[in-house]
Amino acid sequence: MKIALAQLNYHIGNFADNKRKIIRKIQRAEKAGVDLVVFAELAISGYPPRDFLEFEDFVKRCNTAIDEIAAHCTKTAAIIGTPVFNPNKKGKPLYNAAAFLWKGKVRKHFLKTLLPNYDVFDEYRYFEPNRHFKILTFKGFKIAVNICEDLWNVTENPLYTINPMDEVIGMKPDFIINIAASPFNYHQIDIRTEVLRKNATKYHLPLFYVNHVGAQTELLFDGGSLVMDSKGKILDEMAYFKEDFRVYELDDILQGRVIRGITNQRPVIGMIHDALVMGIRNYFKKLGFGRAILGLSGGIDSAVTAVLAAKALGPGNVYNVLLPSRFSSGHSVTDAVNLANNMDMPYDIIEIEKPFRAFEETLKPFFKGLPFDVTEENLQARIRGVILMALSNKFGYILLNTSNKSEGAVGYGTLYGDMNGGLSVLGDVYKTQVFELARYINRDSEIIPENIITKPPSAELRPGQKDTDSLPDYESLDEILYQYIEKRQGPKEIIEMGFDEKLVRRILKMVNTNEYKRDTSYFKGIVQSFWYGPEDAHRG
Amino acid sequence: MKIALAQLNYHIGNFADNKRKIIRKIQRAEKAGVDLVVFAELAISGYPPRDFLEFEDFVKRCNTAIDEIAAHCTKTAAIIGTPVFNPNKKGKPLYNAAAFLWKGKVRKHFLKTLLPNYDVFDEYRYFEPNRHFKILTFKGFKIAVNICEDLWNVTENPLYTINPMDEVIGMKPDFIINIAASPFNYHQIDIRTEVLRKNATKYHLPLFYVNHVGAQTELLFDGGSLVMDSKGKILDEMAYFKEDFRVYELDDILQGRVIRGITNQRPVIGMIHDALVMGIRNYFKKLGFGRAILGLSGGIDSAVTAVLAAKALGPGNVYNVLLPSRFSSGHSVTDAVNLANNMDMPYDIIEIEKPFRAFEETLKPFFKGLPFDVTEENLQARIRGVILMALSNKFGYILLNTSNKSEGAVGYGTLYGDMNGGLSVLGDVYKTQVFELARYINRDSEIIPENIITKPPSAELRPGQKDTDSLPDYESLDEILYQYIEKRQGPKEIIEMGFDEKLVRRILKMVNTNEYKRDTSYFKGIVQSFWYGPEDAHRG
Repeated sequence: MKIALAQLNYHIGNFADNKRKIIRKIQRAEKAGVDLVVFAELAISGYPPRDFLEFEDFVKRCNTAIDEIAAHCTKTAAIIGTPVFNPNKKGKPLYNAAAFLWKGKVRKHFLKTLLPNYDVFDEYRYFEPNRHFKILTFKGFKIAVNICEDLWNVTENPLYTINPMDEVIGMKPDFIINIAASPFNYHQIDIRTEVLRKNATKYHLPLFYVNHVGAQTELLFDGGSLVMDSKGKILDEMAYFKEDFRVYELDDILQGRVIRGITNQRPVIGMIHDALVMGIRNYFKKLGFGRAILGLSGGIDSAVTAVLAAKALGPGNVYNVLLPSRFSSGHSVTDAVNLANNMDMPYDIIEIEKPFRAFEETLKPFFKGLPFDVTEENLQARIRGVILMALSNKFGYILLNTSNKSEGAVGYGTLYGDMNGGLSVLGDVYKTQVFELARYINRDSEIIPENIITKPPSAELRPGQKDTDSLPDYESLDEILYQYIEKRQGPKEIIEMGFDEKLVRRILKMVNTNEYKRDTSYFKGIVQSFWYGPEDAHRG
Repeated sequence: MKIALAQLNYHIGNFADNKRKIIRKIQRAEKAGVDLVVFAELAISGYPPRDFLEFEDFVKRCNTAIDEIAAHCTKTAAIIGTPVFNPNKKGKPLYNAAAFLWKGKVRKHFLKTLLPNYDVFDEYRYFEPNRHFKILTFKGFKIAVNICEDLWNVTENPLYTINPMDEVIGMKPDFIINIAASPFNYHQIDIRTEVLRKNATKYHLPLFYVNHVGAQTELLFDGGSLVMDSKGKILDEMAYFKEDFRVYELDDILQGRVIRGITNQRPVIGMIHDALVMGIRNYFKKLGFGRAILGLSGGIDSAVTAVLAAKALGPGNVYNVLLPSRFSSGHSVTDAVNLANNMDMPYDIIEIEKPFRAFEETLKPFFKGLPFDVTEENLQARIRGVILMALSNKFGYILLNTSNKSEGAVGYGTLYGDMNGGLSVLGDVYKTQVFELARYINRDSEIIPENIITKPPSAELRPGQKDTDSLPDYESLDEILYQYIEKRQGPKEIIEMGFDEKLVRRILKMVNTNEYKRDTSYFKGIVQSFWYGPEDAHRG
């Protein structure tokens, strides 16, 4: 028997495109003599469909698309993720299902039991958990078909009181097929491999794992679908950050023959780099946009953002605007110009002095001689935001936000100013990682001028300003932020780790009191405009 | 036996204040010879505590506070909502509990079984559902103690496969105590009463129901705690939109004696009015702010916002800024000035012409003679936003956003312009309701000048502009938005209701393609800064 895995980049609510993609792979599989081709979790809707699932019509359109796909599964069977209605009167109205398509029809649904509802996941909001267990019998093989989280309850303190594999293992399956929607984070590849390995070894079964690839605004799927033998050895690993399609002889897998093995070993920062480039490219493409604009300050954040955007969209499609004020240093402009020239990106220099003076004059009678303070600093950042948005409105550029996660966390940024933007490229990247990214970008030749990387970070909103005037050094800041944000450690625990108590309290207070600035600089859910079909994509 | 209900306004993470409030009521209850005093769901943490629940330290502090309160429950017992740790290795780490405190100690926990995870609720993210059922035996009575949603599974298509009251009814309880955190919406009072009535009559038991009151940024709790007899008759109804404390003779309730009955019958628009005033007042007070600023345009949205703010904070604390441009009509300024004078609110007039011209000049070389378009309209709105934020930064005012829900839904507003603001007062109020609110405000005398209510709505961003140039009339718009947003009806269903197909498709397309503008004009979770104690409140 031949099994194919299709790792595809779906588009939420874009049924026409998703369907076309899937059918094309079924046809390819059929040509290759494949018996069963496997697609990812909720492939037909894209993941995460979120509140679209609350609209009956949306779910009906998923099912109609699945029926149309089934008509193409005459010889080759397929497993595809889709939401289905719960036929029972009790419980939530939907199940998260793996549909088994064969001989022109949907033959069976395998329902998801464990519904993740933490971090980026919200599945219990929409889906009823499965309680009835079965396996798939196909061409003489018994297959345990399950969905993503169904395999993840293998920790020491299991989150769920049930393990779906325990329920079907008595039915003696020959192997496992798990369809997933498992987003990228820079620890995820190791964690995911470990979880799959625990299952393979615990149940002594080989395992086919199919993930999504591509970006859905703030979620990045890295792909990395894989095949593992019953001893937990990776027999084959599919591409990261691009679509892939591979055919396997089941016999090879059951025998534990290594196909290509692990092929994607790379430094973490390289993975982050590729993830961000893919994220920008998909964001623009799925929304029907082509060109980005950003404020290039001469600092490291906007430099890295510009380079990533140039790699994603082509340098000619990244319009860099230098917006110097009376406080900008000479090197800021020359550094920024050098970067734009190194990458062959268009740029303009627009002085903000005129509007700055006009605001000063307009506000003078109301400010009553009060001294220059954070108000005037914010004013400059907001004037820049207004100019960038005006160019965006006039010419249809999408503004890229250039803030990093560290400054976002402590609120070091101006709301409605430098926090503006349609996509926050570095919004989930700590400042120390931004430096790593710059070094990675320059690994072969100097793309980002060295001076941008080595000079002390500054917002240049008043004379001689440095980030370190109001922030701790970024190494300490990022370590403490990591414990608080990623590890959910409270002040007491972080201090007990040996960090300076005053510093910890100061940083956590900044994080908490600046909560109001976050979650405002992201455009959310804009991809969902595709529900009505690609002709309705947002273009203006 | 005497039972007291305490309907209080808690503050998320402000353990000191919440504890003090609760202890004061226990002391008052003891003086009144009360046997058992009942507080709301998750009273000790405030509701919703959200991701604070992911921090062990936060939950420990809840439990420490409960222990300290228990020391005050020597004679009078208390039931108080609190998160508790799940002692089992399996399942989520917490339960949502009702702690029973008596004779100086926590004696029992009653755990929540049904965890709402829809609409504003996210409880399954944090809590494990209860599976073991018991009742409280206290002074010869058997009491079914449960928590909010536990009583809500009484619809025709129940969301959950279990009913906690079915599990305990065999233990023959004498009455029900339900502690809740049930937010206000303008249908909620009827729905809530109906749900409680179904339980009272289904199980033939009287019912004590205790709700929260007060605002937690975007959630408004209306209070309206009540006592019902076993036939579903309301024996007493506590205050709406303010704290309340009442003592009942259990015998009266068991006998079905009407205490005061229903006392709060009022028009829906009056409830909305009071809810918004409470919301503004609580938002400012809980954050330690005192003074608001807003752009008073002469239109109805900013007029209603200003009046609500004046009622919440005192007219002297609402600073109105008129920001006329070259396109503003004369009546806009006079109408706005008349309103400010009617309410005795301070105001200033700041012309935006100078910065507008400065931006035009600065951008001229880059705009290359292209005609005036939405860019220049947005520019004016953004200049206003910059001026309001500058005044906010300089003097510590909090900017109120004045957009309504209808324009927010269809994206009729300028991102980083008139969508700016710390609190979106009318963000959940449709335009037709804004008119109703204006009429309600003027019910006794003309506070909002009649001309503001009757003139055609206009953004005044170009000569002769009217809202109806780009929007349908607000009656049709709101009806269609209501079906789409509140009722989750898709395009097909709404068209089948008889609405014009072109209009429906146009409106839903606007809603979808403008998703990116929403969720950016709210400051979220700022109240959570109180975790570290009131001294850490955000003040600048």
